[in-house]
This record gives sequence, C-alpha cells and structure tokens, in this order.
Amino acid sequence: MHTLSSINSYAGKTAVVIGGGVIGASWAALFLVNGLKVIISDPDPEIESKAEALITAALPALKALGYKATDVEANLSFEKDNAKAVVKADIVQECAPEKVEFKQALWKTIEAAAPKHALLFSSSSTIPASAQFTQMVDQSRLLIGHPFNPPHLMPLVEVVPTPKTDPEITAKALAFYRGVGKIALEIRKEIPGFVANRLQAAIFQESVFLVAEGVVSLDQLDDVVTSSLGIRWATSGPFLSFHLGGGPGGLSHFIEHLGPPMELAWKHLGKASFDDATKALLAKQLATTYGTSSFYALSEVRDDKEVAVINGLAQVQSPA
Amino acid sequence: MHTLSSINSYAGKTAVVIGGGVIGASWAALFLVNGLKVIISDPDPEIESKAEALITAALPALKALGYKATDVEANLSFEKDNAKAVVKADIVQECAPEKVEFKQALWKTIEAAAPKHALLFSSSSTIPASAQFTQMVDQSRLLIGHPFNPPHLMPLVEVVPTPKTDPEITAKALAFYRGVGKIALEIRKEIPGFVANRLQAAIFQESVFLVAEGVVSLDQLDDVVTSSLGIRWATSGPFLSFHLGGGPGGLSHFIEHLGPPMELAWKHLGKASFDDATKALLAKQLATTYGTSSFYALSEVRDDKEVAVINGLAQVQSPA
Repeated sequence: MHTLSSINSYAGKTAVVIGGGVIGASWAALFLVNGLKVIISDPDPEIESKAEALITAALPALKALGYKATDVEANLSFEKDNAKAVVKADIVQECAPEKVEFKQALWKTIEAAAPKHALLFSSSSTIPASAQFTQMVDQSRLLIGHPFNPPHLMPLVEVVPTPKTDPEITAKALAFYRGVGKIALEIRKEIPGFVANRLQAAIFQESVFLVAEGVVSLDQLDDVVTSSLGIRWATSGPFLSFHLGGGPGGLSHFIEHLGPPMELAWKHLGKASFDDATKALLAKQLATTYGTSSFYALSEVRDDKEVAVINGLAQVQSPA
Repeated sequence: MHTLSSINSYAGKTAVVIGGGVIGASWAALFLVNGLKVIISDPDPEIESKAEALITAALPALKALGYKATDVEANLSFEKDNAKAVVKADIVQECAPEKVEFKQALWKTIEAAAPKHALLFSSSSTIPASAQFTQMVDQSRLLIGHPFNPPHLMPLVEVVPTPKTDPEITAKALAFYRGVGKIALEIRKEIPGFVANRLQAAIFQESVFLVAEGVVSLDQLDDVVTSSLGIRWATSGPFLSFHLGGGPGGLSHFIEHLGPPMELAWKHLGKASFDDATKALLAKQLATTYGTSSFYALSEVRDDKEVAVINGLAQVQSPA
C-alpha cells in the first residue's frame, strides 16, 4: 500500500489548477484525495462536466493506492476568471496550453491577484520557467513542477527551478509535492525536456529505428521492453542496474570491462525520423496489434497494471 | 502468480548447460524447477560448489514465482568434458566465455557428440550465431537464445536465428523457452546487441550525459527512472505508451502533433564517453549513494522487487 503518512500536511489548503484538461484534472484528483480544496479555472463552457468525468475516472486508481477519497465533490469548485480563482490560493498548478506568450501573460495576471505566500508552479514539459516569468515582478517565485502522465498515478515530479528561483521556494515545492505523495526531485539545470522526457526520447528513437529496419515488429519491441527492461527499471535505475551488473566489483568493474563495448554500441545506435514510409509502417503495425482495442480499454488495463507495480514495490520497500 | 500451465512440457528432458557461471547457473535453476534434468559442463575445479551455491540462491525467487522446486538436487549433475556431457542432450544452452574462436571450436565438438535432435542454443549477447557456426557441418541448427539477466527471473529470451537457420528449429526454440515459462521473441535480423541491449545502451548514454553535465546526480537519475519510466515500461512498451499518450486519436495523432518536437529532441540528445573525468564523477557519486551497501544486499532487494513486479502484473494480466 502507498505511504500516506503525510496525507494531512496540506489538508484544507487551497490549490488552484489553471486548465482542467487531462493533466489538470489528474492533478485536481490527487490534490482532492489529499484533502485540499481545489478550484479549477478553465474557459471551456463545459469544463465542469468534463473535469468531473476525468476526476471520477481517476478515483478507482487512487483508492487502490490507499486513498480514502472522501469529500472529493464538496472540495471541488470552478471559477473561469483566472484572477478571481487565485485570490485565496495557497498553491497554483498551471496546466494551460503550451504557448509561451499565453503563459507569460497568465503569470502576470496570477502574480497580481494571488496572495504573496502562494506557491506558483507550471506543469510545462517544454517551456522552462525562465521563459514564462518575463512579465512577473518577482521572478524568484516561479518554477516547474512537471508531472509524469498520469500525474495522479505516477510518483515522479520534476521540480525545475530557474537561476533566479529563491532556494526557499524550491524547498517548499519539494515539500509540497512530497506531502501529496509524490517523489519530487530537483533538476539542477533548465535543459530542454528535463530528464524523464529526454530518456524517453532516447529509447524511442532506437525503438523506431529497430522497427523501421525490420529487426522487430512494433508489438515485439513493446514486448521486449515489458518483459525485461521495464521490470528492471521499475526496481532499479540504469546506474544501480549496471552497478549490480558489475558483480561485487560494482560499476567501476563494469565500466573497466564493458565500458569500451558500451561506447562502441553508443556509436552504432540508430537514427530515426517520422518520414512517410516510417509513419505508414507504424500505422499498419499498430492497427494489427491494437486496432481492435479502444483507447479507454487499453488505458484501464495500463492503469491497473501501474497500480499493481506501485503497490507491489511498496510492499518490498516497507517490509513488515 | 506466474503462469505455470506448461510446466511439464519438457519435464524429464535433458538440458546441458555449457559454462556454470552466473548466467549458466541461473539457466540451470530455471530448467531444474521446470522438471528437466540438467548437466553442467565447466572446467572449473570448484564448479560443483560454486554452481550449487548460485542455484540455491536462485530458488527463493523461483518459489515466489510459483515453482515448487522439488527434485532440484536429484536432477542436477556435472560433467567436465563437453563431448561426454552432450551425449544424451535434448537441449544445449551455451554460456561459455565471449570468445569467438572458443565458441567456434566448441560447437564443432558439440555437433559431433550430441544427438541429431538436440536443440543448440547460444546465450551470447555479442557474438551472433553466424559468427559461431563456422566449423559446424549443419549450420542450420544453431541460433541465439539470449536471456536478460538474471535468466531465471527475467521473462525475456531473444531468439535470434541466422539467415541459415531452419525455420522449424526457430519454432522449436520459441516453443522450448515458452515451455519453461519465458516470453520468447524472434528477432528477425542479426544486429549487434540485438534489441534489449541496444535500447539499454540508448538510455544509458543519455543517463551518463545528464550526470556528466550536472543536470542531476546519479541517484536522482535512478530515482527519475524508477518513479516514472520504469513503472510505465513494466506495464506498456514505448509504442503502446505513446499510442495511449495520443489520446483516442492514438499514435497517429501523437506523431502528427508531437512528432516534430520529438525529432528535435532526438537531435539534441547527449553524447557520452567514459573519459577519466566522467569515471571519477560516477565513482564518487556511486560511493555516496550505494557505498555502504553490499552487492549481495542490493541484489536481494532488486530480486525481491522484480518478483513483486512480475507477480503484481500477472494478477492484472489474468483477471479472476
């Protein structure tokens, strides 16, 4: 079962979620089951029914992780006007469209209307905070709190300060995300894609290359990953894996003996592109493998499996 | 619980494991709990005690996966002479040193001594079967059956035929590995590193780059992976992940909208090398993170976690 020891640290605080789409609604669900009040601010005329449907869909997984999920409805409200929404905010989690000018204007509005103590976080995966804060008076307040999809389920939050971020704000961000059950990690430099998405891009390029080359089919590539690397990396990261792969001599022994062939392998990694032939090949193989399954059915199985992995690992990490 | 429906398909058959080191002993443990007779052939004067210790260490994980692990001792024997060892072999699983001339001579010996029906598999991760079979009379018999470490625990076996391999032999190889509980996948082309190790090399280069650049520390990099990508990839491979990431529009929608930024990300992936500064940095950070933990303690936790992930996923895959 998920560790919920700090469930009450932020209970009763108010989190304002800017943008109630897939990411925003997922954050909202997580904040709600942790006892926060949540205000969703989104101009969509149908935002209430859409967001409530997404939050309702997230609750079974959160309950499976050990959350009680009471008072969810009572603590959720909506306010279309961003300035009005943030007046009583303790935390602002921005999940608006990935348009830099839009975000710049948004933060000017939010800074003017929100309390001085409010924590200001952007969920952006592609626009660093230092590109978003240009119209803010106090640029030391803004940083990235980038979740991994779906945010209510995946433990990781990449906390990415800018060179101007007040270290005390960074510390509060890490404490907040850990308080709502996340594994929050401070990324020390603003770099495009941060860490998780760069690693994902690296493996995806080789994946597309191997399928385009006809070495394996798309479904075989997926099966290779789920039956080997995925299991390994759910339990130990790349460095610990090779530290253990080196035997009692550890990573140093590994690099001494397998470093040169590894460097050679790096030179021979494939290049890929989404040219028309590759896109057609992927579409064809995808239709063969997943064509008859709906997005919702596949997502449900994935979520169930992710909960099973997270809960399975939690049993090992906290031996009775 | 692991699916053991086919546990008896190969019970009573004889598997000869050439080389009783870490990989060979792990294969031996897997074959033994599936009811096969196992002969380990290894010139090490202390092979019996070493291999038995490794097999004993593998049994708790195999029992946790649902194997009964009876008759293990009675079905295990040793024969230093390769030619004598394979006289009654139904399956030969080669796990000898990764030296091409050594393997070429070895297969000549084995082919001459083994029954005509014996299946001949190499565990090699770096020397394709077409580089090993040069002294064989019937080169259609040999292929790669490459496990993912540790073989008794990790589901994947990459079955890599050569252009000369008899398709019937490939089919028998897939059936054999599936019969002993593995997820066996046919790799369609001999390519250096096959599939899993190429993907692993891709992610490791970016990992070393990000640590060398000071974006994150080594332990943070590992935590990013175990708290996001690892969980994702244990449940769904890269293609299914992005197919779901595209929403109801699927992978085509994903590539249409996120293909161009993904291609840009590929261009900006890092390069790494094990130069002296990088090796020193990794060694220092590794000592800080894992320096006080023994190889054996860390391995045990990893194995426990891997079993938890495999068993957790099996519960979802076979709903009651």
